[in-house]
Amino acid sequence: MAIVIKRIGILTGGGDCPGLNAVIRSIAKPALTFINAKVIGILDGFEGFVEGRIRELTKLDVTGIVNLGGTILGTSNKGDPFHYPRDGTSGVMVTDCSDLVVDNYRQWGLDALIAIGGDGTMNIAHNLTKKGMNIVGVPKTIDNDLDATDITFGHDSALQVATEAIDRLQTTASAHHRVIVIEVMGRYAGWIALGAGVAGGADVILIPEIPFNWDVIFDFVWKRSKGARYSIICVAEGAKPEDGHHIIKEQDSKRTDPIRLGGIGEIVAARIQEETKLETRVTVLGHVQRGGSPSAFDRILGTKFGTMALHAASRGEFGTMVSLRGRDVVTVKLEDAIKHQRLVPPDSQLIMAARAVGVCFGD
Amino acid sequence: MAIVIKRIGILTGGGDCPGLNAVIRSIAKPALTFINAKVIGILDGFEGFVEGRIRELTKLDVTGIVNLGGTILGTSNKGDPFHYPRDGTSGVMVTDCSDLVVDNYRQWGLDALIAIGGDGTMNIAHNLTKKGMNIVGVPKTIDNDLDATDITFGHDSALQVATEAIDRLQTTASAHHRVIVIEVMGRYAGWIALGAGVAGGADVILIPEIPFNWDVIFDFVWKRSKGARYSIICVAEGAKPEDGHHIIKEQDSKRTDPIRLGGIGEIVAARIQEETKLETRVTVLGHVQRGGSPSAFDRILGTKFGTMALHAASRGEFGTMVSLRGRDVVTVKLEDAIKHQRLVPPDSQLIMAARAVGVCFGD
Amino acid sequence: MAIVIKRIGILTGGGDCPGLNAVIRSIAKPALTFINAKVIGILDGFEGFVEGRIRELTKLDVTGIVNLGGTILGTSNKGDPFHYPRDGTSGVMVTDCSDLVVDNYRQWGLDALIAIGGDGTMNIAHNLTKKGMNIVGVPKTIDNDLDATDITFGHDSALQVATEAIDRLQTTASAHHRVIVIEVMGRYAGWIALGAGVAGGADVILIPEIPFNWDVIFDFVWKRSKGARYSIICVAEGAKPEDGHHIIKEQDSKRTDPIRLGGIGEIVAARIQEETKLETRVTVLGHVQRGGSPSAFDRILGTKFGTMALHAASRGEFGTMVSLRGRDVVTVKLEDAIKHQRLVPPDSQLIMAARAVGVCFGD
Amino acid sequence: MAIVIKRIGILTGGGDCPGLNAVIRSIAKPALTFINAKVIGILDGFEGFVEGRIRELTKLDVTGIVNLGGTILGTSNKGDPFHYPRDGTSGVMVTDCSDLVVDNYRQWGLDALIAIGGDGTMNIAHNLTKKGMNIVGVPKTIDNDLDATDITFGHDSALQVATEAIDRLQTTASAHHRVIVIEVMGRYAGWIALGAGVAGGADVILIPEIPFNWDVIFDFVWKRSKGARYSIICVAEGAKPEDGHHIIKEQDSKRTDPIRLGGIGEIVAARIQEETKLETRVTVLGHVQRGGSPSAFDRILGTKFGTMALHAASRGEFGTMVSLRGRDVVTVKLEDAIKHQRLVPPDSQLIMAARAVGVCFGD
Repeated sequence: MAIVIKRIGILTGGGDCPGLNAVIRSIAKPALTFINAKVIGILDGFEGFVEGRIRELTKLDVTGIVNLGGTILGTSNKGDPFHYPRDGTSGVMVTDCSDLVVDNYRQWGLDALIAIGGDGTMNIAHNLTKKGMNIVGVPKTIDNDLDATDITFGHDSALQVATEAIDRLQTTASAHHRVIVIEVMGRYAGWIALGAGVAGGADVILIPEIPFNWDVIFDFVWKRSKGARYSIICVAEGAKPEDGHHIIKEQDSKRTDPIRLGGIGEIVAARIQEETKLETRVTVLGHVQRGGSPSAFDRILGTKFGTMALHAASRGEFGTMVSLRGRDVVTVKLEDAIKHQRLVPPDSQLIMAARAVGVCFGD
Repeated sequence: MAIVIKRIGILTGGGDCPGLNAVIRSIAKPALTFINAKVIGILDGFEGFVEGRIRELTKLDVTGIVNLGGTILGTSNKGDPFHYPRDGTSGVMVTDCSDLVVDNYRQWGLDALIAIGGDGTMNIAHNLTKKGMNIVGVPKTIDNDLDATDITFGHDSALQVATEAIDRLQTTASAHHRVIVIEVMGRYAGWIALGAGVAGGADVILIPEIPFNWDVIFDFVWKRSKGARYSIICVAEGAKPEDGHHIIKEQDSKRTDPIRLGGIGEIVAARIQEETKLETRVTVLGHVQRGGSPSAFDRILGTKFGTMALHAASRGEFGTMVSLRGRDVVTVKLEDAIKHQRLVPPDSQLIMAARAVGVCFGD
Repeated sequence: MAIVIKRIGILTGGGDCPGLNAVIRSIAKPALTFINAKVIGILDGFEGFVEGRIRELTKLDVTGIVNLGGTILGTSNKGDPFHYPRDGTSGVMVTDCSDLVVDNYRQWGLDALIAIGGDGTMNIAHNLTKKGMNIVGVPKTIDNDLDATDITFGHDSALQVATEAIDRLQTTASAHHRVIVIEVMGRYAGWIALGAGVAGGADVILIPEIPFNWDVIFDFVWKRSKGARYSIICVAEGAKPEDGHHIIKEQDSKRTDPIRLGGIGEIVAARIQEETKLETRVTVLGHVQRGGSPSAFDRILGTKFGTMALHAASRGEFGTMVSLRGRDVVTVKLEDAIKHQRLVPPDSQLIMAARAVGVCFGD
Repeated sequence: MAIVIKRIGILTGGGDCPGLNAVIRSIAKPALTFINAKVIGILDGFEGFVEGRIRELTKLDVTGIVNLGGTILGTSNKGDPFHYPRDGTSGVMVTDCSDLVVDNYRQWGLDALIAIGGDGTMNIAHNLTKKGMNIVGVPKTIDNDLDATDITFGHDSALQVATEAIDRLQTTASAHHRVIVIEVMGRYAGWIALGAGVAGGADVILIPEIPFNWDVIFDFVWKRSKGARYSIICVAEGAKPEDGHHIIKEQDSKRTDPIRLGGIGEIVAARIQEETKLETRVTVLGHVQRGGSPSAFDRILGTKFGTMALHAASRGEFGTMVSLRGRDVVTVKLEDAIKHQRLVPPDSQLIMAARAVGVCFGD
């Protein structure tokens, strides 16, 4: 049922990713121009919703932003209103502040909220919907681990950055006859490592979904040192050996112990050098994958997502999330969208294709 | 019905596009390693098939090529064997040489052929299938104008190049308060102009599917010169004014008349400057969009396409073309694949999204 | 003699080029922080000086701009105060408005002005110095045609953009066995065509300093079509045949005659195709070379230039221009700086190097 | 005194860097075409000279390589013939094999050798010159730490890669209000960290030449967290705190102790997070800086260096190294070239400029 939107809120939650500003633009511009609504930007994700930090967006605010990385609204990982950290003591004590969010929503006079974020944000959006807020979700994740959409924006940009890095490593690895390890993002889902590994021509790809055997890797790399004379190993940060040690750089918790330095990328490099005596180097890409100007793909998808989210709001389709299915953006129910995380199926076409071109997964 | 493939041919036809080598790699590597087949590269598309130019591909030949633009096999626009130019006299007289192709196919002992190309190549492949050749097609076009697949490889790279160019033009246009016109590829389908225009934040997008009105453009640009003070106009090479003059740079025919210089991009720039007296500049991207290292997206899609085409051949599914549907690569019949060209529907979501962010299409 | 600077003006004149914002930042930040001066940005070059358009710059205004193309101050080609167009009638009638500039300078209470621009801007700065204004110049030109400095910022970014374009053309030219012409900037000086041509591996380079012979080019390209089978031709927009026809796209004048479409790039392409019957394509890079994020080199040089210009102003060294000599930025007198345009010497090391690797200059 | 060169050797030693192939091309092409000499490529640096691994280079071998990273000849860090590791036991026992090199030089009939490399290679070249070999050196180092030339090729490409990475980190750091540390190359000289830090707009730059004080950094970052709300810290791998702990990732020695993981970048990140409780992330760029397609600048400089090195050899100027001085490539004596390493002078213009725009060096 179509509704009249006079004031619409926009919020970006969770980790930032390339394309957020394209979404914001494509909601705010038509809202201001065609719907004649006020557009209220909530700052720093749900943290800003609880704390009451907002900014009205003008047409000028959203002009010239489609190619910018990050988000003009800011974001935060810490703002789940249902488990909100008290006194800013980094999450030790948490309180349910969701009523505060509903109050602010009312007080600001919002007719609808478009929440852009990952599964965490969609979960919160779903729970706030049950409390009566009019929400449409826009999925975003560089990890591509949402099952309810064919792909999210942000992933393509991250893939591109990681692939270009591997391209660069290829020439130096082959010139020096070395082993080079590159650690990319992906704590639970290995899509970035898999995609960039295939695109960049990595020889070994290690992902969380396929626990690896150290000896398989040592053998593979050793054999290559006698033929091609070099190897590129692309490691997801959540990759783990099959002997059960789930070694992961815990970037989101406090790292108080200096001995705990070194993520799986460095560990893989150190162990290979130790076992095979081959010169080994490591690159840890880190947040380079998350920042910077979005790819054309992500800008286009973000623009379609934003426009369609506003359409959904105008039609009163709340409690939904926009989603790409084939060529079309459709809406799915939020409760369905948050059910399944999308991991790499070990029998997926891309895994098959990677094995076909000779990639070793360490299994 | 699965068949034993001992010798498999690969051919790249039509205009080159980024990702061709990714496809070749992902056919040749598993064919050599897992199937233990010989891989015969046919050089320069169907021209090489007629003329008998082939090269056996080794594993080394297809190593380190995934990130290279172009095609290691070469290609040609001139090689339709059913209408083959005689004596190389540039197409004045044509002959049906298709029997020669079938003979060569037999003589070379091929069990299957994988033909990578656009609609022209798929048409030829379809007709050769009827003559008994075992063919699987792999679709490729930077224009994205094939209806039988959600997307083809090559298009994403072209979009990215065109978008980066518009990004660059934005800063100089705004610094100088100028009008800048950029002409991109797309003689019949406007997908590149539309996608890059939206991604790059163009103010006006002109595509073949939406004939434009000169006065609408003059007015729009003039008004912007009083507000934002600059405009970016992204023009597909096949864009045309609605008054019926289909002006197009005929790059594929001989340009013997020096007065016929200047494509639609230059004409649009000249007319805007003439009518509005605003300083106007023009960029003609040309084949920059076609060359260079493919995007991660295109390398991944190309790799999946190649692997799946070989699978299809192994299963004896000839007369088919691989196609992306949602997340999956499937096969469709060649005769269905060639039925429809995919133009930009004027009511498509991307057109709607573009209008929503304020793009003028000149209509 | 050191002076106390309480108010300092900054102006960017002439065509924009990558690195302008790096210069602005490196003047404004220390002026605000260390010198405690007010920083007055003059908008749109000397046009804004005449018209009285200024904006005081805060620290926030110059934060996060080092990587942006264009100029946050705007620029203009039309603002020579000594020959200022009356009534905006595009230069038909001009008046000397230099006294107005001196008045504004006084009225705004400026102690010094830093003028960033090319030879046009330096000439104006020199003449205004004679009228008593305290000016330090910062040289800028993408064409690299200033003799008084080893290099200017902006040129490196333009070279990089043009080189990447040629890289892309290489793959498509070789895949298709074609001739591809790329027209780059350089109306009088061929540095961009020469540098990008050498860096990109062009086969033919045509620059204004070496008039070319049509037949030499036709022969060269024809021979290559029998061997390497393709050619890349990099043409400066000011290149001309030795038979005296100086054909150039007159972008700065009104183009009222549609028949005058087509610059030297298109003419070269058309004539080669006509004479050799080889398929020929053309790219006109245009302002893509001028815009976009500056290269690291240009940002660093710009930062050094800006800082040193402010130093020079603090020491009272007016009527000077900063200049790179070897590794060091020094100051030279404005009157010396504007004496010589720097064209490509036909016996320069880079020409020799280009010939050594086989480049044809058409002579 | 001019000599006749019938056979000329080329060798690339030390770490690879972008631009090596441009040098090789610009030696080999004119040698083959104009001088009519044979060109002998020595594989894998001086290791290949000792072991006798050579390959004659044809024109085809050096065509289309100007834009490729790495080196088509391979390289090695382990091949100092004066201290050559016996039995491949990684340097435990070393022998003087220089006579073997001289013998091979004679046996292969070389009239001259052009040795491309860093200070290690130039030292070896100098010592082999004393044994009668005709050598011209070409300086190369991504670190830019050779005093005898204004700049070497390779450095600009590394700067560009590191700068683009910082650009990307800017958007994500600001979106999340985080501290982000990026570790770049530079064990002894901080030119990459300094240049990329200035170009990318880093807030803190830590280089080996300026030992840092932890508390200064903690204070600086903490204050920024209250204003700009984020910080970017660019750390050279050889940066060290002033309290004497020279912490460095020892990549060239065997890393047998898994506890020794983590270079200075990770240590800085861990300590900042520990002390300030601000969320901190780290990127370790590693060999991404060393590989990939060279910048236009490096290709052009490499081309000039190669051509001029061949000229020097033709004139019999042996025991020399080519060097950039201002705009010109000149030759300097090898014995002078190897005298001084070029570190960042704490009072250099670029340090001054960096401080002027507000960079904290931790001192």
